[in-house]
Amino acid sequence: MNKPADQSQFETPKVTTGPLPASRKVYSHPADAPDIAVPHREINLHPSANEPAVPVYDTSGPYTDPSVTIDVEKGLARDRRAWVLERGGVEEYDGRDVKPEDNGGATGKYLAREFPVKHKPLRGLPGHKVTQYEFAKAGIITKEMIYVATRENIGRAKAAEGAAEQIAQGESFGAHIPEFITPEFVRQEIAAGRAIIPANINHAELEPQIIGRNFLVKINANIGNSAVASSVEEEVDKMVWAIRWGADNVMDLSTGRNIHNTREWIIRNSPVPIGTVPIYQALEKVDGVAEDLTWEVYRDTLIEQCEQGVDYFTIHAGVRLAYIHLTADRVCGIVSRGGSIMAKWMLAHHKESFLYEHFEDICDIMRAYDVSFSLGDGLRPGAIADANDAAQFAELETLGELTKVAWDKGCQVMIEGPGHVPMHKIKVNMEKQLRECGEAPFYTLGPLTTDIAPGYDHITSGIGAAMIGWYGTAMLCYVTPKEHLGLPDRDDVKVGVVTYKLAAHAADLAKGHPAAQIRDDALSRARFEFRWEDQFNLSLDPETARDFHDQTLPKDAHKVAHFCSMCGPKFCSMKITAEVREYAAGMSENERNDLEKQAAEARKGMEEKSREFMEKGGEIYLEQK
Amino acid sequence: MNKPADQSQFETPKVTTGPLPASRKVYSHPADAPDIAVPHREINLHPSANEPAVPVYDTSGPYTDPSVTIDVEKGLARDRRAWVLERGGVEEYDGRDVKPEDNGGATGKYLAREFPVKHKPLRGLPGHKVTQYEFAKAGIITKEMIYVATRENIGRAKAAEGAAEQIAQGESFGAHIPEFITPEFVRQEIAAGRAIIPANINHAELEPQIIGRNFLVKINANIGNSAVASSVEEEVDKMVWAIRWGADNVMDLSTGRNIHNTREWIIRNSPVPIGTVPIYQALEKVDGVAEDLTWEVYRDTLIEQCEQGVDYFTIHAGVRLAYIHLTADRVCGIVSRGGSIMAKWMLAHHKESFLYEHFEDICDIMRAYDVSFSLGDGLRPGAIADANDAAQFAELETLGELTKVAWDKGCQVMIEGPGHVPMHKIKVNMEKQLRECGEAPFYTLGPLTTDIAPGYDHITSGIGAAMIGWYGTAMLCYVTPKEHLGLPDRDDVKVGVVTYKLAAHAADLAKGHPAAQIRDDALSRARFEFRWEDQFNLSLDPETARDFHDQTLPKDAHKVAHFCSMCGPKFCSMKITAEVREYAAGMSENERNDLEKQAAEARKGMEEKSREFMEKGGEIYLEQK
Repeated sequence: MNKPADQSQFETPKVTTGPLPASRKVYSHPADAPDIAVPHREINLHPSANEPAVPVYDTSGPYTDPSVTIDVEKGLARDRRAWVLERGGVEEYDGRDVKPEDNGGATGKYLAREFPVKHKPLRGLPGHKVTQYEFAKAGIITKEMIYVATRENIGRAKAAEGAAEQIAQGESFGAHIPEFITPEFVRQEIAAGRAIIPANINHAELEPQIIGRNFLVKINANIGNSAVASSVEEEVDKMVWAIRWGADNVMDLSTGRNIHNTREWIIRNSPVPIGTVPIYQALEKVDGVAEDLTWEVYRDTLIEQCEQGVDYFTIHAGVRLAYIHLTADRVCGIVSRGGSIMAKWMLAHHKESFLYEHFEDICDIMRAYDVSFSLGDGLRPGAIADANDAAQFAELETLGELTKVAWDKGCQVMIEGPGHVPMHKIKVNMEKQLRECGEAPFYTLGPLTTDIAPGYDHITSGIGAAMIGWYGTAMLCYVTPKEHLGLPDRDDVKVGVVTYKLAAHAADLAKGHPAAQIRDDALSRARFEFRWEDQFNLSLDPETARDFHDQTLPKDAHKVAHFCSMCGPKFCSMKITAEVREYAAGMSENERNDLEKQAAEARKGMEEKSREFMEKGGEIYLEQK
Repeated sequence: MNKPADQSQFETPKVTTGPLPASRKVYSHPADAPDIAVPHREINLHPSANEPAVPVYDTSGPYTDPSVTIDVEKGLARDRRAWVLERGGVEEYDGRDVKPEDNGGATGKYLAREFPVKHKPLRGLPGHKVTQYEFAKAGIITKEMIYVATRENIGRAKAAEGAAEQIAQGESFGAHIPEFITPEFVRQEIAAGRAIIPANINHAELEPQIIGRNFLVKINANIGNSAVASSVEEEVDKMVWAIRWGADNVMDLSTGRNIHNTREWIIRNSPVPIGTVPIYQALEKVDGVAEDLTWEVYRDTLIEQCEQGVDYFTIHAGVRLAYIHLTADRVCGIVSRGGSIMAKWMLAHHKESFLYEHFEDICDIMRAYDVSFSLGDGLRPGAIADANDAAQFAELETLGELTKVAWDKGCQVMIEGPGHVPMHKIKVNMEKQLRECGEAPFYTLGPLTTDIAPGYDHITSGIGAAMIGWYGTAMLCYVTPKEHLGLPDRDDVKVGVVTYKLAAHAADLAKGHPAAQIRDDALSRARFEFRWEDQFNLSLDPETARDFHDQTLPKDAHKVAHFCSMCGPKFCSMKITAEVREYAAGMSENERNDLEKQAAEARKGMEEKSREFMEKGGEIYLEQK
C-alpha cells in the first residue's frame, strides 16, 4: 500500500503507562498452577500509618507495570495461547482473508493502517470441549478458573477473621458469597450458568475475569469510533485509559469505516475482555441499509470477529416480529441501535428475525471460539415512561428461552438489561431476569433513574447501577456525562469509569463481600489521621482528589498539617476525637458504669415519651381531620 | 469608620440574574389569598412540539424575573412582613446592638462592610401564637400554608387525570401523597409535626417552602466563608447561584471573622430559608476555645441570629455526656464540628451539655421568632465502618425525646441524619428516625455509600440521597465534589445542587408524586423527536447539556438535524421507530391477533423451558457439590 498523504492515520497510538501513585504491581502464583501470574495492585501507605500496603483488584494490565516494555505496534504478550493449546481440542488455521468491506471500503488515506503483526486463529475441533462452560460441566478446572479464583480472593486472606461477619451483615438478596473463592467454586458457578469467563481462545493477551452474581461486581466501558468522529489512535488510547481507572472490560462499538482494523489494534493491546455488537459491522457491509442485511453477511462477520479474538458478542436475537408493535405506543420507541436495525429488517421483509431463526447456527460458531453471548435487550426502555412494559418483558422472556438453547450448545451466556427505570421499578427487573434466565449473569446499562439531567447521566444512572448491582446484577455498563448528547472523550471515559467503579463498590459493600471494606477503612483511617497523601493514593482517582485539595490548600505543608480547609487550623473536630479517646481510655470502671446507667435511663425515658407521643400524635392528626 | 486601605471588602456582591433558557416566571394568586403571588417557572417548547409550556418548581426567587430590579445593597422586597404583622401577636423592638465579637473582632480592612439597610426586628408577645406549628395546632391556616400548598401543586392540575394512577404505581413506604395539596392538608401535616415551614418572622424576604415526607423532596446547599478562605461577596453570589440551579434552601456555615455581617448580606438577599449552626459563631466569640463556651454566650448568639432572620438552627443538643465514650472505638470518631465542640466542652467540665440542660430555654427563644429546630446529629458516622453504631442511635433516641419537648413548647422541628452509610444500612436509619422522632421531617447529609471516592462524593452520596429520599427523607443536604478535600467554589456548588436535584427528583418519581414525571416525559419526547433545544431547555442544567452536545456536533444545523452523534446521519434508531409506528398503525386486526397469539405461545413455551431448567439447573449445581 502506498504511503498516503494524510499521516494522521499512521501514528503509533500513544497510551498512558506507569504505576498509579504509591502503587506497585504484585503477581501471585497459585499453588495449583504456579506457571500463571495473577496481578493485583498494592497501595503503599505512609510509614506513620504503621499499616501494611492495601491490596486492590487491578484491571490495568501490563501498562502499569514498569518492568514491562509496552510496544503497541507488537501488542501484549500472548501467554494465554499456551493454556489453550495445552488442553487441546483446537486447531490453528489460516483464517478468513480481510475484505475491503470489513473496513467499510475505506481506501488510501481513509484506510486505517493494519495491525503490523498477524496471528493465525485457533478454532475448536468438532467433538472436543472448547468453552469454559463445557469444561466446567465436565468437571474440569481450567487455568482461567484458577486465575479468576485467585483474583477474586484479593484481600480475602486479610479479611479472613471478619469474613463470616461481613457476609452475615450484608444483604445479598439470595446471592451466595463464600468467604474464599476456590477454583472448584468457580467451576460450579460456570457449570450452573451463574457466571461466565469471557475468553475467546484467540484473545491470547487476556487476563481472565469472571462475571457472576456471587463474585465482585464488574463494570464495562464503551469505546469505539463513529460515523462522525474519532480515529484508531484515540480508541486504543481510550481502552488503555479506561482500564487504568478500573474498567473490567471494554466494548468496541465502532461504526462507520475501519471497524476491522480499529478492533484488531484494540484486541492485540487489551488485557481485558473485548465485546462487540456484530450487527453494527454487518450493517456497514451493506452500506447501512438494514433491509439488505442477510444471514450470510452476518455469519461472515461473526467468523471475522471470532478469529480476531472478540470475547463476547451482543446479539439481539430476542427482538421478535411478534413484539415490534408492542413498542408503537412508547414515548421513546426502540432506542437500542441493534434492536431497531432488526426491527427495520423484520418490517421490510415481514419475516421473523434471522438472528432468532439462526440462533443455533450462531451458537455453533461462537462455541468453536468460546465467544460468550451477551443477549442484547433490543427493546429496552429509553425513557422512564417506557420502563417495564410489555415489549421489554416479552423480549426478556425470549432471552430466557435462548439462554437455555445456548447452554445446551455449550456456550457461556449473560443477559443485557435496561436502560431507563425509576427506582421503584428496578428490583422487579432483577428478579424477573433471574427467574426467566435461570440465574445467567445480568449485565445492565445503568439504569437511569430520571430523564431530566442530560450532562449528568453518569449520575442518574450511577444511582440505578449501584442499586441493581446490589440486587444482583453481575456487570454494570457505564454511562458517561456525554450520554444522549455526544461521544465521550478521554475525560468523559475516566469520569464514567470512576463513577461506575464507586457504584459497583457500593454494591459489593452492601452485598457483604468480605474484603470490600478494607479499602474504605484504610482510607477513613488516613482521613482521620490527616494522612492526606494516603487519602489521595487510596482513592479511586488520586489525581482529582489531590487537585481538589490543592485548590484550597496548595501548600505542601498542608498535606501533613493536622487540619483541613473545612474547620481551619484553630479548631478541628478530628483533633477533639483524639482527646475523646484519651478520656475514654482513662475512664474508671465505675465511671463507665455510671454513664452506661445514665444512658440506659435516658433511653428508657425516651421510649415512654415516644409511646405517649404516638398516641397523642395520632390524636392530633385525627382531631384535625 | 475610616475608609480602609483594602477595597476588596467593599465591593457590591455581583450576582447572576436573568431567566433560564426558554423560561419565564409565572405567578399564581391563590383564591383564598389573592394578595400573595406564588412563583413557578414555565419552560416553553418549540412550536413543532405542539405542547404547552412545562411548569416547574422554582427556587430562584426574583433574580430570574426580568421585571424585578435587583439591588443587592437594598436586599429583596420584604412582602412577608405584612403577613406577620396582620395576624398580630408580635412586637417591633430595637433589638440587640451589634458587638465587635459578632464579627470575630475584625476591624479596619478586615471588617466586612455592614449591610447598608437596618430593619427593626419583630418578636412574639408572651401568650400569643407565633409559630406555624402553634397556628396549625389551633386550626388556623396561615398565608405561608396557602403559599406552600399552591407551590406544591405545580403541575398537579396538568397531571390530574393520571394522578391517582401515578400515586398507586409509586412505592412511598408509608408516606401519604395526596392528588392535590390543600392548605388544610398542609395545616394538618404541620400540626402533626410531620412537616415544617422554616420561616423566621424576621425573614420578610422569604418565599415560604414546606419540608415534609408527604411533599416534594427538598435539597439544601451549604455555603459560608471559613477561617482559611472566601469573602462576603463570594458567599452572597454562591447563595444566588445555588438557588438558581434549584437549592430549596441554604445553610450559612461561616466560621472565622465577619460571621454577623456575612449572614446579614445573605439573609437580606435570600428568598429561600437560611439555616445556621449557632455554636460556630459562639465558638468564635470565645476565640475558638470550646471549653470557654457558656450558656450566656450561646444564648446571646441565638438572639442575635433570631433577630437577623435565620429560619432554622442546627442544635446538637442530643450529644450527651453519657454518649461520648461510645465514639472512642470508631474509625473516624466524631466528625460533626458541632458535635465535637460540645464533646470537648463536656470533657473539659465533665458536665452534661448546656444545650441539653437549657433545651427548654432554647425553645422559648426560638418560638418567639418561629425559628425551626434542625436537631443536629453530632455523633453521625464519618465512615462506613461507623454507620448505625451505638453512639449514633443513642443520640437519635435523645433527638426523639427533644422533638417532643420542642413541640410542647410550640416549635417546629426537623431531625438531621447521617453521614456515611452503606446501602444495606440506609433503610433502618429512616425507619428508626420516623419511630423515635414521631415522624418529624428527616434531613440527611447524603448518606455516602462508600469512602473510597474523594473528589466524587457528590456521587457516592447522591446514591444514598436518592435512596433515603425515596424511603422518606424530607430534605437532602447536598455534598459537593470538594467534600473532604476543600471548600466548594461556584462550579462545585452548581454540580452539588444539580446532583442533589436529580436525586430528589428520582425519589419523587419513585414515591409516586403525581406531577413528577411530567418533565421526564416532556424531555423524552423532545429527545425522541430530535428537538435538541427543547431537550437542553428541559434539563436541570441547560448550559452543560448544550455545551456537551456542541463538543461533538458544533454546527447549529445539528440542533435541528434528525440524527445524533451516537449513530450518525446514515442510520438512526429513533428514525426507525417512527416507521414502526406507521407499521403498527397500518396493522389489520387479524394481523395483530396472530402476532399476539404467536407472542403468547412463545411465552408459554418459555415458561415450560424455564421450569425444566430450574430443576435441571438445580441438579447441575447439586451434582457438583
